[in-house]
Amino acid sequence: MKDLKQITVIGLGLLGGSVSMTVLRNFSNVKAVGYAHRESTAQKAKKLQIATEVTSDICKSVSNSDIVILATPISTFNDIFKQIAGNLKKGCIITDVGSTKVSPHKWAQKNLPSHVYYVGSHPIAGSEQRGIEYARDDLFDNASCIITKTKNTNPNAVILLEKFWSRMGCYVKILTPAEHDRIFASVSHVPHLTAAALLNANPDELLRFAGKGFFDTSRVASGPANIWADIFITNSRNCCESIDKLIDELLKLKSAINSKDKKQIEKLLEQARTKRAEMINYKINTEEVIS
Amino acid sequence: MKDLKQITVIGLGLLGGSVSMTVLRNFSNVKAVGYAHRESTAQKAKKLQIATEVTSDICKSVSNSDIVILATPISTFNDIFKQIAGNLKKGCIITDVGSTKVSPHKWAQKNLPSHVYYVGSHPIAGSEQRGIEYARDDLFDNASCIITKTKNTNPNAVILLEKFWSRMGCYVKILTPAEHDRIFASVSHVPHLTAAALLNANPDELLRFAGKGFFDTSRVASGPANIWADIFITNSRNCCESIDKLIDELLKLKSAINSKDKKQIEKLLEQARTKRAEMINYKINTEEVIS
Repeated sequence: MKDLKQITVIGLGLLGGSVSMTVLRNFSNVKAVGYAHRESTAQKAKKLQIATEVTSDICKSVSNSDIVILATPISTFNDIFKQIAGNLKKGCIITDVGSTKVSPHKWAQKNLPSHVYYVGSHPIAGSEQRGIEYARDDLFDNASCIITKTKNTNPNAVILLEKFWSRMGCYVKILTPAEHDRIFASVSHVPHLTAAALLNANPDELLRFAGKGFFDTSRVASGPANIWADIFITNSRNCCESIDKLIDELLKLKSAINSKDKKQIEKLLEQARTKRAEMINYKINTEEVIS
Repeated sequence: MKDLKQITVIGLGLLGGSVSMTVLRNFSNVKAVGYAHRESTAQKAKKLQIATEVTSDICKSVSNSDIVILATPISTFNDIFKQIAGNLKKGCIITDVGSTKVSPHKWAQKNLPSHVYYVGSHPIAGSEQRGIEYARDDLFDNASCIITKTKNTNPNAVILLEKFWSRMGCYVKILTPAEHDRIFASVSHVPHLTAAALLNANPDELLRFAGKGFFDTSRVASGPANIWADIFITNSRNCCESIDKLIDELLKLKSAINSKDKKQIEKLLEQARTKRAEMINYKINTEEVIS
């Protein structure tokens, strides 16, 4: 990490802005260059001092970088790889913070030159907010970050990126892109679209009666539609399979409720309660080990 | 309310304990009597000074009360009505804090004497915790409380109970039990069982990858299984109908995702986002009007 002189963040929204701010906080003598597509975002980023330097010239932004991090919607990655391909210095690591990983790996393989190294990243951090105004330099503290690699991924680039995300405050796990996308369809993408479905199943007059429980259950559905549409599209098969699994579980509960089978309803609810307790327990123990 | 001398809370869990504590905080010169089925709970209630008086004699607990509030699982209501029927003083108001209302009204009508008045209550407050240790005297601050009445319900009892819950910190809405159960199947009961289904659809190894979003989405599933089983059983038809509506919405999303129809996915997500924004907006404005 001592050779790290410059990182570039492409896209200065909540996540990209937070990456840049955290680099400035956690790395000394590393230049954070931010690229913003919109002039208004670039102006805000400058005003908020989110990066050492902010530019709206994407090629210039990456030309001296050791690590380039894409923090734009996934559907833009393919074009961005093409745009920056000719401006990357030898040995540069390209990564991203997108929530699906199979497609980015495929696009990188196709469009990036052989003298640079693509590795996937997915920091499990964020919120339902969007925009640079919500960027924070502590967003990644104690978050987990998945790094994805295939048999073609450069092992040294993986090691370096692992150190990078650790220094950013994350604890790192390594998966293949296929494993990643299957797992996150199940624990993130489908829960997200379920929150949306719960809202869409209710007319506004009924939602006025919602309590704190429903506010929490539906929170993620306030996230940006375009970013999530990209996630679902680039992980469509896994998402569809996970939706089917969820519907199976809903129908199990429906059947027990329909026949007023208290024992079976309690069994299913107790199973969920136990699973959530174990999930919390794992999180607490993992964070204790890390901190 | 100046004639209110004594209330009795039957069942000293999170909700019942909180009712008693709030009465002690918000009403001067009103005696709060608590009944606990288990001796260990009664001891804790005494130690925590949750009520003016704690007893494990249910008949004695209600005999001098102006308002009796059931805060036990719904499946116990029918028997409790029978048990206390002979010990209630004339003009006493009986209510409860259960999450479904059609069954309690039916059981009250059948088992309570004509010289007392049953009115349903459902304060929209609580948490996924259970037990008297989690009781709080501010649980009802700014919560809404639904009061339910039928054509047989005494209008003066409704007015008095409305004043009671307002003084407890709630803003009150009045519905019929049938309206109540239909609405809450949709905005509370089915969201709850969906959280359980999301957990049950995932093996524990996958849940270890869950982030903050899933923790929030699934929070309510940590609630007590027996209490929720009673809720689903006493509202089974509405719950089954709401599950079907939710599955319809999930299948709409699945179809759009399966065909990678970005425009349609964005439309459905944007619809959910707007609904949630309106729900929050309504809540903020209502609370401003009340406070």
